[in-house]
Amino acid sequence: MKSLRVPEATVTRLSVYSRFLERLDRKGITTVSSGDIAEGVGVSPAQVRKDLAYFGEFGTRGVGYNVKDLMRYTQKILGLDHNWSLILVGAGNLGYALCTHKGFNARGFTIVGVFDNDLSKIGKQIQDLEVYPLEKMPEIIEKYSARIGVIAVPSRNAQETADIMVKNKLEAILNFAPVTINVPEHIELRNVDLSVKLEILTFNLGLRSEKNSSI
Amino acid sequence: MKSLRVPEATVTRLSVYSRFLERLDRKGITTVSSGDIAEGVGVSPAQVRKDLAYFGEFGTRGVGYNVKDLMRYTQKILGLDHNWSLILVGAGNLGYALCTHKGFNARGFTIVGVFDNDLSKIGKQIQDLEVYPLEKMPEIIEKYSARIGVIAVPSRNAQETADIMVKNKLEAILNFAPVTINVPEHIELRNVDLSVKLEILTFNLGLRSEKNSSI
Repeated sequence: MKSLRVPEATVTRLSVYSRFLERLDRKGITTVSSGDIAEGVGVSPAQVRKDLAYFGEFGTRGVGYNVKDLMRYTQKILGLDHNWSLILVGAGNLGYALCTHKGFNARGFTIVGVFDNDLSKIGKQIQDLEVYPLEKMPEIIEKYSARIGVIAVPSRNAQETADIMVKNKLEAILNFAPVTINVPEHIELRNVDLSVKLEILTFNLGLRSEKNSSI
Repeated sequence: MKSLRVPEATVTRLSVYSRFLERLDRKGITTVSSGDIAEGVGVSPAQVRKDLAYFGEFGTRGVGYNVKDLMRYTQKILGLDHNWSLILVGAGNLGYALCTHKGFNARGFTIVGVFDNDLSKIGKQIQDLEVYPLEKMPEIIEKYSARIGVIAVPSRNAQETADIMVKNKLEAILNFAPVTINVPEHIELRNVDLSVKLEILTFNLGLRSEKNSSI
């Protein structure tokens, strides 16, 4: 890999490019230009070239990129050339939704254990997974060599859930609770805020109203 | 507003800054520097200043920003100085999770109608909302002056759901289905991909393994 200091925005776009390339590949398309990728995902062609340049030389001038090669390469960069086992805590509505979310499996993510401390949920079945008590987490983590935990509990339980994940030696946490949690520096933590994208919509609708009212 | 051409990444960060300022305000903190904001949300101080500069002059050199003023201003820019009514289609697990998601209400988003075409779901109650058939959408949109629709249906139904929203004159759509949908140019569309952030984690875990193996 060319450099370890890749901006997170580049990694995010790489994930989007990778999905776009998968779609092209499924359609049987074999070559693609940076312009096509740019148009398909809504960024500039220069941005696509700049993002890919972090990881080396791709494509042939005037010919473009080989779809399958670039798709596999982006998947490899993102760590998606193998499957990942996820531990999920929180068997509420969001937990159910995540367990049945087709987008995870499509990218090689498999939820291998669902945990809750609510006695009314323990023992229930979500798809082919039984909801386990938190005490069973170490066993499942070891069995599947899981490194990533997903937090889908109410905000008030998010920090203690993160603490348990850290104690159980998970290395990365994806937090869906709309609250800030603290973890040691060696843990990779990202928050999924479900309303950030809503606010891009309201920002744009606001601009639109402003435009109309200034006519 | 200074300029209409604000990069989407700036709007996204503004949404994050705004939440951070709300937290400071709740704690009773009255002034903040760009350095504090930067550290609190994980970007550089220069980035914070650059992002805010799109919207005019803020803060006093050597004193910093007034938390309450900047919080209100960022909320106003994002269109969050008033409430937004959301229409939700899809009363499955994800729909339930979104209806009960505390993060929406905290930012002034209220789901005012839940719709599904599944007869086994219509008439059911999610919190204080009854699940309505799709035919009732125009009535609810008019009643609440809703402009934004949220798609929480399975991928195979996402496009037809978007078409119905467009036909019913919604102006913006937030799509949670892991599939590309097409809408006319005048519709604001954003997709929430639940696995993009997971892929940032796997990218970083990949770098880590690489580092370890090269020791």
